[in-house]
Amino acid sequence: MARVLITTVPFAVHDSLPLELLVSAGVEFEINPLGRRLKEVELAEMIAETEILIAGTEPITEMVMDAAPNLRLISRVGVGLDNVDLLAARERGIEVTYTPEAPAPAVAELTIGLMLSLLRHTHVANLKMHNGEWDRHMGRRIPEVTVGIIGTGRIGSRVLRRIPAFGTPRTLVNDLEPGRKLVPELKLEWVAKEMIYREADVISVHLPMTKQTRNMIGTEQLRLMKPDALLINTSRGGIINESDLYQVMSEGHLGGAAIDVFQEEPYAGPLSEIDRCLLTSHMGSMSIDCRSRMELEATKETIRYLSGVELDSRVPQDEYETQLMDRH
Amino acid sequence: MARVLITTVPFAVHDSLPLELLVSAGVEFEINPLGRRLKEVELAEMIAETEILIAGTEPITEMVMDAAPNLRLISRVGVGLDNVDLLAARERGIEVTYTPEAPAPAVAELTIGLMLSLLRHTHVANLKMHNGEWDRHMGRRIPEVTVGIIGTGRIGSRVLRRIPAFGTPRTLVNDLEPGRKLVPELKLEWVAKEMIYREADVISVHLPMTKQTRNMIGTEQLRLMKPDALLINTSRGGIINESDLYQVMSEGHLGGAAIDVFQEEPYAGPLSEIDRCLLTSHMGSMSIDCRSRMELEATKETIRYLSGVELDSRVPQDEYETQLMDRH
Repeated sequence: MARVLITTVPFAVHDSLPLELLVSAGVEFEINPLGRRLKEVELAEMIAETEILIAGTEPITEMVMDAAPNLRLISRVGVGLDNVDLLAARERGIEVTYTPEAPAPAVAELTIGLMLSLLRHTHVANLKMHNGEWDRHMGRRIPEVTVGIIGTGRIGSRVLRRIPAFGTPRTLVNDLEPGRKLVPELKLEWVAKEMIYREADVISVHLPMTKQTRNMIGTEQLRLMKPDALLINTSRGGIINESDLYQVMSEGHLGGAAIDVFQEEPYAGPLSEIDRCLLTSHMGSMSIDCRSRMELEATKETIRYLSGVELDSRVPQDEYETQLMDRH
Repeated sequence: MARVLITTVPFAVHDSLPLELLVSAGVEFEINPLGRRLKEVELAEMIAETEILIAGTEPITEMVMDAAPNLRLISRVGVGLDNVDLLAARERGIEVTYTPEAPAPAVAELTIGLMLSLLRHTHVANLKMHNGEWDRHMGRRIPEVTVGIIGTGRIGSRVLRRIPAFGTPRTLVNDLEPGRKLVPELKLEWVAKEMIYREADVISVHLPMTKQTRNMIGTEQLRLMKPDALLINTSRGGIINESDLYQVMSEGHLGGAAIDVFQEEPYAGPLSEIDRCLLTSHMGSMSIDCRSRMELEATKETIRYLSGVELDSRVPQDEYETQLMDRH
């Protein structure tokens, strides 16, 4: 088995530079042969001799690490760390790096696209047209609605910065600390999440998965929303409770939802029965340029580690602390 | 029968102000009872006593006008005039007004939404997810592609102005006269249409329907495009030849297309067989605010006419000249 295991797929398909770098550094590597997100047991079986894991969103648990006595570095291709047991890694002296900046532009651009689809119901018209039905919808434009953004970090702030091109909506935002000067073109109103649920016409969530955010939006929060509110999740599955969302939408509540991330992926649940639910397959970071940048950054960390050079994007301490707090 | 016939539907559903204005002006009116775009014969049968037609995109031909001896004003809700025989109207002393500015923001916003869907293949993923398939697509972002805009009038220019929020792509534009300062943030390259066909990754058409633009993009032009080019038409059906588009796409050419307008509407043709074709039902101007503004402006013209007040938005002479040239 190779020293480097690449589990995230597809990898280096559109830009082979990461593989070329590994080859010229003389690094033996292996790419996930199953071509999909690995389950915990599958990863544990594959990782026995791995020294460096170039990782996706598969579960990298204590059990997996116990099966990987040689593991020294987890180089995460992406920004979310909910799939990595950081504390277990620290106990074992396994370093963890990630690529926090790279996915943000692609996720933000997808989010705006989903927002525009929901506002004009193009996804519903397209489904119907492909069934031979002419299906016209009256929609709304961004400057005519109240936009609510929960989470104003790398991705949420980029979503906000792309909005004023369409005109100026009322914009409600929520995050741990108000960044009042975030987007000077928009008069941001920093409000409680409940006010966003009650008053926004379009609500988009840009949060990491933690104990606090898991099931943050369930039946109670969904019922606070306007009957024709539009809801977007391109962050992590499980922040919006999927079965609650299915339940309220099948009863006719909400004007639409765009869900790119799911509690279990590949998703095969009942949201697919609901036409006004726009479903995509965890494609937030899947633009060629962002994906290439993520793969390249994660590969460079790998080579830095093997060459004994200082790592560039170690996961910061507060991510460890968040996981520690989640345990208690 | 009423003096005012309103053929465009839906009318005043989201904002009843136009109807209230007609009522308080004491104007008898009737709304198209079929609830869909009328055919020429249907309109001719309905129009015998009409003095003012508040019109949509149905054919208002010489035959229709001959069936309407009392017709004095065609107040078009919208901007396209390809459905109105302007010369026949002029010969009969029938005035024609329109609402050229109102639809533009809604059409431009829809176009950007369609562009983002095509670039990320969200429409394909959504179709597949609704069939229970997890279907991931690698996409591209706006600043990474070459955008080609054909037609830089009210709508094309607004599309261009919304692009820089996403970063700066190479931007090729074509129109009768280069407006070099149109969008200072973008370095616009004014080029021949053929160069746009050959070099653009995303091509969007914003032209009126005239003899020159009918079938402007057929097999020959489609074959010039890149194999993964993305094509958008939110202007008028028939500018892109639908059967040619179906033919080349079913052979695997083009990465996607978003078609909102069709030669015959409601559309029931074979483009619905092609998953990467994003189909909507002539929804460009269908945002509540723009639609309300269009309906209100067309209604106000009606009331101005009936009160003997000067009309505000008479169709300009060059529209008549275009139709005259089309005849020869």
